[in-house]
Amino acid sequence: MKELWDKYPILKKQLEEFELYLLKILEVRQPLIREAIQELVKAGGKRIRPALVLVSGQFGRISHEELFPIAAAIEIIHMATLVHDDIIDEARVRRGVVTTQAKYGKDIAVFTGDYLFAKSFLLLSGKVDQEFLRRIARSVKYICEGEIDQYQNRYNLNVSYLKYFRRIRRKTAILFQASCFSGGFKAKLKKKYQIVLAKYGHYLGMIFQITDDILDVTSNQEVTGKPVGNDFSQGVYTLPLIFALEDKEVGPELGKALKEEVIDKDRIIKMIHSTDALEKTKRVIEFYTEKARAEIEKLPSSKPARFLEDLLYYIVSRNY
Amino acid sequence: MKELWDKYPILKKQLEEFELYLLKILEVRQPLIREAIQELVKAGGKRIRPALVLVSGQFGRISHEELFPIAAAIEIIHMATLVHDDIIDEARVRRGVVTTQAKYGKDIAVFTGDYLFAKSFLLLSGKVDQEFLRRIARSVKYICEGEIDQYQNRYNLNVSYLKYFRRIRRKTAILFQASCFSGGFKAKLKKKYQIVLAKYGHYLGMIFQITDDILDVTSNQEVTGKPVGNDFSQGVYTLPLIFALEDKEVGPELGKALKEEVIDKDRIIKMIHSTDALEKTKRVIEFYTEKARAEIEKLPSSKPARFLEDLLYYIVSRNY
Repeated sequence: MKELWDKYPILKKQLEEFELYLLKILEVRQPLIREAIQELVKAGGKRIRPALVLVSGQFGRISHEELFPIAAAIEIIHMATLVHDDIIDEARVRRGVVTTQAKYGKDIAVFTGDYLFAKSFLLLSGKVDQEFLRRIARSVKYICEGEIDQYQNRYNLNVSYLKYFRRIRRKTAILFQASCFSGGFKAKLKKKYQIVLAKYGHYLGMIFQITDDILDVTSNQEVTGKPVGNDFSQGVYTLPLIFALEDKEVGPELGKALKEEVIDKDRIIKMIHSTDALEKTKRVIEFYTEKARAEIEKLPSSKPARFLEDLLYYIVSRNY
Repeated sequence: MKELWDKYPILKKQLEEFELYLLKILEVRQPLIREAIQELVKAGGKRIRPALVLVSGQFGRISHEELFPIAAAIEIIHMATLVHDDIIDEARVRRGVVTTQAKYGKDIAVFTGDYLFAKSFLLLSGKVDQEFLRRIARSVKYICEGEIDQYQNRYNLNVSYLKYFRRIRRKTAILFQASCFSGGFKAKLKKKYQIVLAKYGHYLGMIFQITDDILDVTSNQEVTGKPVGNDFSQGVYTLPLIFALEDKEVGPELGKALKEEVIDKDRIIKMIHSTDALEKTKRVIEFYTEKARAEIEKLPSSKPARFLEDLLYYIVSRNY
């Protein structure tokens, strides 16, 4: 993604400022939470959500600093869900860095996540109007529902597309949508542009999650920083797998392989690759990409619009 | 506590209405969260925090229904912390009922708690002003800090009074304080009465937690619904134990007993009882009780003031 930022040096600089802002507002008194949280911030992440807030704001007249609290609140909510997510996944590494729960234990991870949620609401209250706060609180609710849905459907070989899309919408797309919407909202864009940005964010979020799910069966740990086959080995069946299970020849065998006591990840990945599942999944991504492009076209032709287009391209073609 | 409610039939009726309100607003679509949450509500609890909100509001002119969203938000925050707390304690029962984490697993418990936090902010936003929201978000932050402090100081035989008081202030007293304050604030009482109520809430919360800590070494599971000696066997050393550890004769031996691989709960409880630790702890409670009474005297003599006085008595003398 480095090349993307290099094309947009102003945004890049704003995000560097944002990074310092984020570290500053997360200076916590309690030493253990501080340590855990500072490590989380320093572990980085793509900061796509803050970037979306800032860029969406650029369609109007607002300084980037005014958008920092909202961008930070959304990124902090994202961090909180990651911390709690890792408890569920019993994940040892994320982004190549040892997770909070692996380093400090589940106990600290639970309250670090809670602390981050509280912090994000503290950041927002006073900075945005009540209707906006309600949207954010509702997003968090949806994220939780998505996570529990996912947990509840683990090892369910009959998980439908509908359920999969519903789940990733809640789990991922909603916060992308909120990021784009909030930048536009705060910059007081015309209502129609706020809606266009929200839709773009939604489609981008869907694409982001689906490519993530592709990477889980195509990439390797050195590139993504997390173990491959992580999802299906924990019973989370994503789109490539759902398509592969439909394959008349490979499907039944794959179903059996997934039910084995100790599953053979490499074999399962090979089986998926032997079907047209990845092709089909990529077609779904293309579908969403078209939708997202159509939204961008409704926006005034401008530098931020070009960024949204470029970002789309980077998300689709990312391999990390 | 039944006798207390019987003396205040109007409040009792309001709390019965509140119970239905709470169940209604916690009707969740996601089936598993709904089940877990409805069980939590039905498991009951003393509903002291909602009662404090309602009674504090009675010093002004406001209908009890108007206070329901705030009372519910505070009780839901309390429920969320209990759910997450039980993960840390690996508690199997609370209030005689199997905990969320024991029944559904840590994973569901994590997101059920998150869901409840989000829900409470959703309830509040739009219903209270931003400054009030900030207070609540800050309270949640403090609660998390208190919980982590407690976790970090487990098995620390040198835990000081100061740290103990700081911890229970965050863990418990802050939400009691917020309950009293918010009722008075929402009913638009004079600023000085809002402060008096907040102070009363603070002292009551301290008393509540200290009596809880006494019960952990004096009561039995059938009465409290949770195992006795639960705290110290998990390395959480509370006031009675801190005092007992100071005893010149028993202290060193007690310290050793606490460090044993498999601790002998009965023996430890007997050792505590052989010192003047419980006497001293009760004197601390008396100290706070006097403080709380002094605040009540600053309030207009009235039925709600009498309730606050009676509640104090019940909290101090409770054995469950």
